[in-house]
Amino acid sequence: MSRISDEPVVLATGGAGFIGSHIVVELLNNGFSVVVIDNLVNALKGNDGGPKPESLRRVEKITNKTVTFYNVDLLDIDALKSVFLKHNIVCVIHFAALKAVGESCEIPLTYYKNNVMGSINLLEVMKEFNVKKLLFSSSATVYGLPQKLPLTEDHPTGQGCTNPYGKTKYFIEEILQDLCASDKTWSVVALRYFNPIGAHKSGLIGEDPNGIPSNLMPYIAQVATGKRAELKVYGNDYDTLDGTGVRDYIHIVDLAEGHISGMKKVMDKAFSGWRVYNLGTGTGYSVLQIVHEFESASGKKVPYSIVERRPGDVASSYADPTRAKKELQWTAKRTLSDMCQDTWKWQSQNPNGFKG
Amino acid sequence: MSRISDEPVVLATGGAGFIGSHIVVELLNNGFSVVVIDNLVNALKGNDGGPKPESLRRVEKITNKTVTFYNVDLLDIDALKSVFLKHNIVCVIHFAALKAVGESCEIPLTYYKNNVMGSINLLEVMKEFNVKKLLFSSSATVYGLPQKLPLTEDHPTGQGCTNPYGKTKYFIEEILQDLCASDKTWSVVALRYFNPIGAHKSGLIGEDPNGIPSNLMPYIAQVATGKRAELKVYGNDYDTLDGTGVRDYIHIVDLAEGHISGMKKVMDKAFSGWRVYNLGTGTGYSVLQIVHEFESASGKKVPYSIVERRPGDVASSYADPTRAKKELQWTAKRTLSDMCQDTWKWQSQNPNGFKG
Repeated sequence: MSRISDEPVVLATGGAGFIGSHIVVELLNNGFSVVVIDNLVNALKGNDGGPKPESLRRVEKITNKTVTFYNVDLLDIDALKSVFLKHNIVCVIHFAALKAVGESCEIPLTYYKNNVMGSINLLEVMKEFNVKKLLFSSSATVYGLPQKLPLTEDHPTGQGCTNPYGKTKYFIEEILQDLCASDKTWSVVALRYFNPIGAHKSGLIGEDPNGIPSNLMPYIAQVATGKRAELKVYGNDYDTLDGTGVRDYIHIVDLAEGHISGMKKVMDKAFSGWRVYNLGTGTGYSVLQIVHEFESASGKKVPYSIVERRPGDVASSYADPTRAKKELQWTAKRTLSDMCQDTWKWQSQNPNGFKG
Repeated sequence: MSRISDEPVVLATGGAGFIGSHIVVELLNNGFSVVVIDNLVNALKGNDGGPKPESLRRVEKITNKTVTFYNVDLLDIDALKSVFLKHNIVCVIHFAALKAVGESCEIPLTYYKNNVMGSINLLEVMKEFNVKKLLFSSSATVYGLPQKLPLTEDHPTGQGCTNPYGKTKYFIEEILQDLCASDKTWSVVALRYFNPIGAHKSGLIGEDPNGIPSNLMPYIAQVATGKRAELKVYGNDYDTLDGTGVRDYIHIVDLAEGHISGMKKVMDKAFSGWRVYNLGTGTGYSVLQIVHEFESASGKKVPYSIVERRPGDVASSYADPTRAKKELQWTAKRTLSDMCQDTWKWQSQNPNGFKG
């Protein structure tokens, strides 16, 4: 096997998923060439019958550019190596992960295997091919129960992280820090996502969950289209403005732009080692605020009922985004109204997601 | 491939190493049949030229019983499965791990891969073969910097755990807890070792480190035989009785007996889920106390020099062993003098360890 091109490319693991596909759009728009690997557990194959997932077909339509795609699982180390042999990879963005909090409590070994072993495999192959620039997709879940709000990057991590999904992100962060401490030639930036929602303004790509959505926004969107009867709101007796949980929702395209800034940091010759950034707006909204904003964006009613709190849920969580602003010159620009409008555009244009 | 015997056996991963071999002796003496797998990175092949490691040859000599051995690495999942196919495994004791703190800081990925991925592989194979009883070899390292002494099992873990070796033990504990929470048919006991030293009273088995010993006792023993010129003592200005670091040293045979008690707990039909126990004496000794006790046990001088503190070392660490006493009816019985005498017997009878 030999190189099929010497063109410098960014490798995006899990690049066919909701977050990945939006970031691939921004990468292409910013002049990067992109190779995506994905095992397609969170994405659908192409409607044209080809192997390329529909999300990436849409990305190509939006950008009028081409994405190279391989159906590769990070647990298949030989398949992974073959991608590094074929392409001149200069940087890796690592999104690939199982991501459902509830499911992670039911099948923890599967989560640890996929997320942690998958990441270790990726790092070993990167090391073998001397590719030592990595942008890692982490999560605000690593903070566990907030001791203080807003959450800054130096808030303790790992403690009170109540689900295996969150722990996999925390474990990988720890592994990356130890790796950077042992070998100063690595440059690793981790981005801790708050709650990405919304969709690309074209309405061509968006969140397309398997089965019953486990996140709030796609659930609301499916209620608005009539696919689900009503939204369950888990508790309205929290110490918040209206009693429902408050989270820091961030527009997926703002998040994607944050990755371009993060990439520049990773590729900066003056940078090496480990650095972590929150990607959030700094503003929290309650579940009911989202519901009402979505109703006005969509012109649809979103019926809901209040049910019991879920164990492990906290009242409020939101970011201090100062570090990313200072060091990456990045801030979230889009409003809650943008988030709801763009979600609605995607959902109403694609009531069955990427399915034909 | 099919069963070569229906006899119920205990599988000991890493059973050819220092800790493993002593526990295999106690298992055999207590009527258990034992199958050992080991990749032999921390043990030597047999002096008779056969595949069975010398440590297990000696175990057989001590007990006058036979141990079945396979040279299997936990990262080789097919080889691992073949052992589960061949034997009627009723319980697993999982010692296998890379264990050098200093080395773990230099090659963290290797440590995470071997220890964490190796453990996940083991758990997946156990699940596949419906073997859900596990005794896990953990470490007091998971406590990190002690917030309060003596260390009880509910002391926070993971935070301030400054080296990748310790983190691998912490990660595996977390994975095991999540696994037990997800599936109530598992029975898992983790034993947090303090500082096991000493050797079997026969002098036939003991600690035989590769290269320069990274633990205190084998280093002292090699200084006493003249193999090393002098001991380096890392700091004599700690807040302890003589300024040198205080640790909870436990005789390896006491530790082994603790495993028999732990095994009984794991095999108890009334027990399921996750439980963790300290294995320590509850008494701390300083580096210089060990040196002086070793000198009187061996009749040899142990020259030493004081050098700078090592980053990450704490002044004192010792166990509260109450829980193991109450719930496992186990306590350490052997004295510091026993530990030094037995180490010396092993070292003086085997100046080159297991090497012919």
